[in-house]
Amino acid sequence: MVFQSSITYDGGTSEQYFFKEQQVVKSIGVVTTVAVEAVPPSLQDNTADLDRLKGALALSLPDKLSGFRLRIPFRCMAKVAAAFRGAGFRGHAIVAVLSEELEILDFSRELPSLLPAVALDLGSTHLEAAVIDLLTGKTLARGHAVNQQVEYGADILSRIHFAEKKKLTEEKEGDRKSAEEGMVLLQEAVLSSIGCLFEEVTARASLTTDDLWAVSVSGNTTMIHLLLGLSPYHICREPYIPLVNAPDPFLASELGLRSHPLARVWVLPGIGSYFGGDLISGILAAGLDQAEETSMLIDVGTNAEVVLGNAEWLIACAGAAGPALEGGVARMGMRAGAGAIEHVFIDRTSWHLTVQTIENSPPVGICGSGLIDLVAELYLSRIVDLRGKFQRSFSGQTPTQQAFVEHHLLEVKGETVFLVADEETTGTEPVLLSQTDLDAMMRSKAAMYAILVTLTGQVGVEFSELERIYVAGAFGRHIDPAQAITLGMLPDLPMTVFEPVGNSSLQGAEQILLDETVRERAREVSNKITYIELNVNQEFMIRFSGSRFIPHTDPNLFPSVPTFNSTPGG
Amino acid sequence: MVFQSSITYDGGTSEQYFFKEQQVVKSIGVVTTVAVEAVPPSLQDNTADLDRLKGALALSLPDKLSGFRLRIPFRCMAKVAAAFRGAGFRGHAIVAVLSEELEILDFSRELPSLLPAVALDLGSTHLEAAVIDLLTGKTLARGHAVNQQVEYGADILSRIHFAEKKKLTEEKEGDRKSAEEGMVLLQEAVLSSIGCLFEEVTARASLTTDDLWAVSVSGNTTMIHLLLGLSPYHICREPYIPLVNAPDPFLASELGLRSHPLARVWVLPGIGSYFGGDLISGILAAGLDQAEETSMLIDVGTNAEVVLGNAEWLIACAGAAGPALEGGVARMGMRAGAGAIEHVFIDRTSWHLTVQTIENSPPVGICGSGLIDLVAELYLSRIVDLRGKFQRSFSGQTPTQQAFVEHHLLEVKGETVFLVADEETTGTEPVLLSQTDLDAMMRSKAAMYAILVTLTGQVGVEFSELERIYVAGAFGRHIDPAQAITLGMLPDLPMTVFEPVGNSSLQGAEQILLDETVRERAREVSNKITYIELNVNQEFMIRFSGSRFIPHTDPNLFPSVPTFNSTPGG
Repeated sequence: MVFQSSITYDGGTSEQYFFKEQQVVKSIGVVTTVAVEAVPPSLQDNTADLDRLKGALALSLPDKLSGFRLRIPFRCMAKVAAAFRGAGFRGHAIVAVLSEELEILDFSRELPSLLPAVALDLGSTHLEAAVIDLLTGKTLARGHAVNQQVEYGADILSRIHFAEKKKLTEEKEGDRKSAEEGMVLLQEAVLSSIGCLFEEVTARASLTTDDLWAVSVSGNTTMIHLLLGLSPYHICREPYIPLVNAPDPFLASELGLRSHPLARVWVLPGIGSYFGGDLISGILAAGLDQAEETSMLIDVGTNAEVVLGNAEWLIACAGAAGPALEGGVARMGMRAGAGAIEHVFIDRTSWHLTVQTIENSPPVGICGSGLIDLVAELYLSRIVDLRGKFQRSFSGQTPTQQAFVEHHLLEVKGETVFLVADEETTGTEPVLLSQTDLDAMMRSKAAMYAILVTLTGQVGVEFSELERIYVAGAFGRHIDPAQAITLGMLPDLPMTVFEPVGNSSLQGAEQILLDETVRERAREVSNKITYIELNVNQEFMIRFSGSRFIPHTDPNLFPSVPTFNSTPGG
Repeated sequence: MVFQSSITYDGGTSEQYFFKEQQVVKSIGVVTTVAVEAVPPSLQDNTADLDRLKGALALSLPDKLSGFRLRIPFRCMAKVAAAFRGAGFRGHAIVAVLSEELEILDFSRELPSLLPAVALDLGSTHLEAAVIDLLTGKTLARGHAVNQQVEYGADILSRIHFAEKKKLTEEKEGDRKSAEEGMVLLQEAVLSSIGCLFEEVTARASLTTDDLWAVSVSGNTTMIHLLLGLSPYHICREPYIPLVNAPDPFLASELGLRSHPLARVWVLPGIGSYFGGDLISGILAAGLDQAEETSMLIDVGTNAEVVLGNAEWLIACAGAAGPALEGGVARMGMRAGAGAIEHVFIDRTSWHLTVQTIENSPPVGICGSGLIDLVAELYLSRIVDLRGKFQRSFSGQTPTQQAFVEHHLLEVKGETVFLVADEETTGTEPVLLSQTDLDAMMRSKAAMYAILVTLTGQVGVEFSELERIYVAGAFGRHIDPAQAITLGMLPDLPMTVFEPVGNSSLQGAEQILLDETVRERAREVSNKITYIELNVNQEFMIRFSGSRFIPHTDPNLFPSVPTFNSTPGG
């Protein structure tokens, strides 16, 4: 999706990158090289070295950069001048591409073999980074890390509240007290996580962080605020106003991020408190803003964020549908990772339950897709009724079914729980799904569907008119759309409509580093997108109530899903 | 000259600034204010604070700034956002005006009472600074200081050589040796001088250096290199190429100059190793580049720098004519300062010599204008002949004359010297002019005239066609053009042609801070000016030889100057 080209591949070993290289030659990275050949100085031409470089460079610019102003940052004047003279006034200028301006960062006699940069997906619990080569578009290394901010709060809201805390710490050396703000601790935590991750991924690519010519960051609005040391106070308070949506590129060194001294940080623009640059990344990666046909992008992280649109228009909203689906609500919930139950299958002939875990590790919890699978299977097995409540018996129940129910449906501390994996299977604690978890899940699924209906309703688009529904992230990678449809969480459409897009936040961050047209699209998208605030949307609340059944109060909306009589049997 | 306006003055006490204010309102300083009124945020308008500010600001820009991109530097995002919100989303944005880009530095509910900035004339021996208010154009304070670099070398050339030195200093704390470059010492010295001067002038204006929103610097090419920590190595070596002529504005903090954290340093562009921004300043201050008629600007500092031209074209050259005229060669030479003999008069009836000193202090030396006066008077008194040699006797000499000569022309250590002021007058050492001083003076005056003739000859302009000859600096303020003509140093033109312009280097530095059209003119002038390299100019060498007589080998060029038979009398 990222790199399309009509050039025919003629063999060789670098197939996966061939198209990328062809594309990157035509696109302009945030840092790029320009071949320069200047007339050497003489008594007849006494132009100063750096002015000579600028003059020659201005004549050598590719069409896309033609007319850009040229600037040489103070701290690299001496270095660039020495390199230019040392190279005999010809070679390759390394330039940062800003808005209608080029910054000359270095000069090299030979074309550099690599121009590494790093793209970062800044999640609230999880960071993912990719080192890419700006010259070829090649991915040199990837890595991920936990966001150390989790120590101060599991979710966005708790971090915003922590950021407001003024914590007094007593210094050991004396009785002097210094006020240490929560915001500072949060910023330090995330910078430390990013620092370690950058060290790790650059080492994996046999580089150091000093080799990084640029950094891009894609994250939700709160995470970006905490990274930049900006107060997120108003983000969670009506009328929910961020301090900044589209920060201008700034030096990584200003943030204390180790990289080339003149590396800039490019932050994907967001459009609101609950709609950040990570979703703009998703729109760019899915190409929603370029397609003639209307499509939808669903990104379930801490929030469920949904975008609908095409090349003409884009509309978006976000709502708190996510936690249950991302492992944030269910007691046994967890992120998609080793040991997470991602698929559940109940054989309704032999009445046998099978779980599939990530990396086939012993089960330790349930991730979002596992939860959807489980509840859908329980509904189809009639152990969960249309209201989302456990039921021990129902009409037409067979003895085998009844035995299955007896084995799995337990009472723990006065609450009904479903045994997903017993102690024997897990090796430690059993994995359980409680009625409380189920209720949270029902709210999440109802919220999700209500969001989708509200959004399509705003522009009068029918689900059947959607060309594609892109599902982002780990959720998109692991979810079985058929099961989500069973629950009434996703609309009842053919499976071919649903397309997982992986970590589209990271993909968008990579693309803005590599391609100036994507940078332009990011600006355009953030300007043209219409954001619906669900917190004050009456229609959403009505839709939400209607969605709190499986699959829905109006089963005609889900013709492919079987419905059962809700009356408990004998 | 700086501020022209057709507005009629209607009285009041601030006459001297009235026109400035009127002008400055229309011109755009390097930092300026823009009134902004934004719609406060609401659920219907959830634009982020800083994006809201940018949006409202974009709609409020004056015509001259319309369409400029808006940027908020990383380090002031939080501050600007808090100020904007605190002011109720209306007030005055303080913006730095860059090339087609505005940087939002601060926000204030009320219009700031002052927007101070500092202009600096960076001379090789002498610094001069003016604190000005960018809102009104008012000068708030002025001051000057010695350039501490003199400790490492009296003139440009000796500093360039010092800059090349690698000096090993032993640290007291251990036996570790650290290489300390001459360049570093020179940069530290000038930064220390500038720092002290800025402290002094801001204090004089009841401000601190932190209040300075911008800095401008006008200086010769070598001084700018040493200030920026750039090697001046190639400046004095064929083909005489500076490292940079037109440095881009950079943060004062990057140089370690105390000022507002986001204050930028604007360096006047130069055009060559021997033609720096100080002279571009002079062109701007004199308005040479705007006049229809052709004029000339002469700036005598360490070098004599001369520009000829009008609104259509500009041609310039520089040569080593200065030292003798600036007190750098004559043993008793000194800069124009208290106790410097600036005028000498010999009454050729009573044969009495009178000296006039600056501030009427007891004489301690002779400044450039005093030297010119003295030698011209000695020539007219026939004590110096047309070859520039002392003569004790000449035909037609009277006894009174002879007594005068006997009294003043002494032999000291085998050399003929002229007694300008005796011990009784000075209170210490007598002030003397030796034959060696006279020879140096003759070379300087010859060089000066040769430069002027070569330059006008290049474009076929006659001296008589010149509308004005602007004479810059202390030299221009003190010199008597009639005496310079007597020596054959300046062309034989009516006195009304000569106009002193004061410290035009500082004036230019002030103007680029205040007026965007002057910044544009600086760029245009530095691009369009043609520079003649005299070091390789054959014609100059021929002219130089012809000028080594008083007034000239061809006395017809100086009809107003009397000529005497050169034969010594009895």
